[in-house]
Parts: sequence; structure tokens; C-alpha cells
Amino acid sequence: MAHTVLQKGKIIARVRRIKGQMEGIERALETGAACGEVLRQLASARGAMNGLTAELMEDHLQEHVVHAKSEQERQSGGQEMVDVIRTYLK
Amino acid sequence: MAHTVLQKGKIIARVRRIKGQMEGIERALETGAACGEVLRQLASARGAMNGLTAELMEDHLQEHVVHAKSEQERQSGGQEMVDVIRTYLK
Amino acid sequence: MAHTVLQKGKIIARVRRIKGQMEGIERALETGAACGEVLRQLASARGAMNGLTAELMEDHLQEHVVHAKSEQERQSGGQEMVDVIRTYLK
Amino acid sequence: MAHTVLQKGKIIARVRRIKGQMEGIERALETGAACGEVLRQLASARGAMNGLTAELMEDHLQEHVVHAKSEQERQSGGQEMVDVIRTYLK
Repeated sequence: MAHTVLQKGKIIARVRRIKGQMEGIERALETGAACGEVLRQLASARGAMNGLTAELMEDHLQEHVVHAKSEQERQSGGQEMVDVIRTYLK
Repeated sequence: MAHTVLQKGKIIARVRRIKGQMEGIERALETGAACGEVLRQLASARGAMNGLTAELMEDHLQEHVVHAKSEQERQSGGQEMVDVIRTYLK
Repeated sequence: MAHTVLQKGKIIARVRRIKGQMEGIERALETGAACGEVLRQLASARGAMNGLTAELMEDHLQEHVVHAKSEQERQSGGQEMVDVIRTYLK
Repeated sequence: MAHTVLQKGKIIARVRRIKGQMEGIERALETGAACGEVLRQLASARGAMNGLTAELMEDHLQEHVVHAKSEQERQSGGQEMVDVIRTYLK
């Protein structure tokens, strides 16, 4: 991914935050937290993952389709986009 | 949407099928069908709607972004795509 | 579904509204509306369908699991709930 | 959560696997992996998270609603279930 250093840093920070949420869920399960509490934490992690996915799909669309450096990159970038959409809306 | 007549006919047929599924759910509710049965029919209609959405997003991406007729169309087509993705992954 | 007449009327009204949204999408396609517009209408119909599904799952849970009239109804109501959850989170 | 030790171990193993997937995504981003590859890994992590959520919702339903130890637990367990459903189908 050809992100600027700043953008890349922000995206990696979001990935780490989700990893941290999974660690929180692990601890909650180990310490016998209430079921409802674990489900709430899981819903929150899923929301963060959806947000990150939307961000990366948008970045991909802008860089590799809209502003692709060649027709070939645009074609393959568009096809990758189609594959991802199918995964989410199957 | 600049679909060929054939493509357009197929897409409209899918929309009508989902409309028919909604009519089936209406009848099921009116005749007092079991709750589980209504939920199954609803899940099936939702699956059909997801499939149709994926199809239309792909068509939009191909026509108005990958094969856009101008840079301006590509920019606005890409932006519409981003808006739709955000709706589905918010 | 053992809804009161009033509840049932409200649910059927929601189903009809979604059917109306599908008719709107059909017309939009037939009259050559912009792709982005059709996708927005489809996202709106999907939101309405999600809301209706949540409502029916809650009604099912309350009537056939939490307030089930027998242990047998509770078991089978719970199993139907599990099947529906799997459909949505597969 | 009142899981048996064995069940609990399996669930924690699934949480750790998702954490491992997030670490893989972090590495992919840091080493400049292709956008499409990162999106595929993210889709895979999301699938694993959906599967885990379905599992925990089912466990919650069975333990705290269907086989609740008191009417009070059944009521509150049912309400927590409703809250989670609304989060996923809003």
C-alpha cells in the first residue's frame, strides 16, 4: 500500500487498537466476566473492524482505481475491489 | 444507469423477485405463520438484497469508475462508491 | 405468531413499506435513474429490513423463549433463534 | 460466563486466533503488502469474529435464557440478548 508515512501510522494504530480490544476480551473471558459484557466488547471490536475496512476500501479505491497510474493497475485494482465487495455482501 | 437492455431486464427481474418475497412475508404474517418461518423468509429476502447490492456496486464500479468516460465522471463515481461503502460498513 | 392485532398491524405495515421501497427501486431502474441513486434507495431498503428483522427476533425471543408456555416450546424457540443468528453471522 | 473449562479454553483459543490475525495485518501493513492482500486478511478476521460472536450469542441464549436458573435471570438474559441483536441489526 502506497500510503504516506503519516496515513500508514494512523492505520497501524487502528489495527493495534483492535488487537488491544481482543486482548481485553481474552482477559474478560479468563476472569469470568458476564456473558453480556463479553458480547458488548465483541460488538465494539467488530464496529472498529468495520470502520477500518471501510477506510482501507476507500484508500484502495482512490489509489488503485480512481488515481491508478496505468490502465492495467485500474483494471486489477477494480477487480480486487469487486472481490472484496462480494466477500462482504455474499 | 447505462446498462444494456438485457442486463437491465435481469436486474429488474431480481428487484421484482425481492418484492415477491416481501409479499410472501406479508401473507405469512396475515395467515399467522410460525415466527421461525417468517424469520427464515426474511433472512432469504435479505440474502437476495445483498446479492443485488453487490451486483449493482460492481456494475457501478465498472461503468462509472474503471471505464468512466471522463476524469470528472471517475471522481464523482468514486465518491458515490465511497458513500455506499460507508453506509454498509458504518 | 401470536401477536396482538395491533402489533401485527404495525409489523405488516413495515413489510408493506419495504415492498413499496422495492417498487421505487424498480421504477428508478426503469426510468434510467443514476446508479448512485439506486444504490442509496437499496441501502435504505436494507436498513428497513434490518430493523424489521431485529423487531421480529426480539418478539420471537420474548414470546417463544423468555415467556414460552412450556419447556418444549422454550427449547424449540431457542433452537430457531440459534438458526437465525447463524444465518446472519455466518 | 459459566462455561466448562474445556468450552472456555476453546473460546479463548478463538479469541487469540483473531488477535493473531490482527498481528498479521499489522505486519502486512508495516512491510508494505499489497492493498488487496490486506483487505483479504481483514475480511478473514471479520469472518472469524462473526463466527465467534454467533457462538457466544448461542451460549448466552442457552445458559442465561433457555436454561436460566431463575425467572429473573431469564428476563435479564433475554434483555441482554435483545441489546446485542439491536447492535448487529441497527
